[in-house]
Amino acid sequence: MKMPKLPKPFQVVLDPKTGIPRRYERKLVRRLSDLRGFFLDNEFVEGKLARGKNPIIYEVYEIPQSPSEGLFSLACTVLHPGKVGREYYFTKGHFHAKEPTSEVYVGLKGKGMLLLQTRKGMVVHLPLEAGNVVYIPPRWAHRTINTGKGKMVFLAIYPSDAGHDYERIKKSGFAKLVVERGGKSTLISSPSLKK
Amino acid sequence: MKMPKLPKPFQVVLDPKTGIPRRYERKLVRRLSDLRGFFLDNEFVEGKLARGKNPIIYEVYEIPQSPSEGLFSLACTVLHPGKVGREYYFTKGHFHAKEPTSEVYVGLKGKGMLLLQTRKGMVVHLPLEAGNVVYIPPRWAHRTINTGKGKMVFLAIYPSDAGHDYERIKKSGFAKLVVERGGKSTLISSPSLKK
Repeated sequence: MKMPKLPKPFQVVLDPKTGIPRRYERKLVRRLSDLRGFFLDNEFVEGKLARGKNPIIYEVYEIPQSPSEGLFSLACTVLHPGKVGREYYFTKGHFHAKEPTSEVYVGLKGKGMLLLQTRKGMVVHLPLEAGNVVYIPPRWAHRTINTGKGKMVFLAIYPSDAGHDYERIKKSGFAKLVVERGGKSTLISSPSLKK
Repeated sequence: MKMPKLPKPFQVVLDPKTGIPRRYERKLVRRLSDLRGFFLDNEFVEGKLARGKNPIIYEVYEIPQSPSEGLFSLACTVLHPGKVGREYYFTKGHFHAKEPTSEVYVGLKGKGMLLLQTRKGMVVHLPLEAGNVVYIPPRWAHRTINTGKGKMVFLAIYPSDAGHDYERIKKSGFAKLVVERGGKSTLISSPSLKK
């Protein structure tokens, strides 16, 4: 087993108001333009971008370890509230590139949902809010959806060598979408599902 | 790689008052008698047990996966407040049996400390309370100490095949102890440290 220089133990303080780590190594910002092709209502997306609007959909505060078997990385995601057409803001969603790896989400703020899907198209959806913990086993693609009115914030713990495979899920799409219907979040089958 | 039947994703709801998972698979209870030989003041321990007193030191609510590479287990520990002589209640502490494995603690309630030590005797101590996250890299033995007045509760996320090696740390002891001095928690060098 490859063993790099081992990290020392460290503590992360989450801001009690925002849930965001007081110190982190990298901040990733995903705007609407970064999620082109992910939302159902493409016209809505292109129209908004054409008008010079490119809202932040989510931000990730990363405390990564170098990719190596046995190490864990931490990341705090802030998923903004909002909708693209009827569809709630979501994270891109991904499979792990190294397939037999798990992940755990700890809900910190707000209210939303986790959508999970296997390669064979099996779908599971779970609520995620403050005080919830979700276990994502190996081989389940995962996407979070903010169905609330405030920011949805959660902590992710995952192997540092898990990697992200966004392409597979971008190609196939999630089999389910989460949309607003009559003021409520509703799970519907994706009309645009490409096999 | 050995792949057992894969678990399905699931959600764990932590009770907002206690931090304890509403559902768990196993509950482990560690009483004073289970920690014989761990505390500095052996006379105190034996005297208490001789008087028929055997208080609970900590409880662990486990949501384990079968030991298999790539799976994560969850556990919520409730470490009671109290002292054995001048020494605050603590968990036994352990190395992982499978050495290149990490662990993450998420502080939920109360206030305490995490004591970490390598085989070579390098020691690190970190605060752990609600809103703190601690990363425990591979090869660091870890013990939690409740230095507060209420229960100290934290969530642990670790590989399901990490295993526990309590014997090594029982034999060598931690190089540091956490005791009360003048009403404050203080880190002292262990006078009984066996090499």
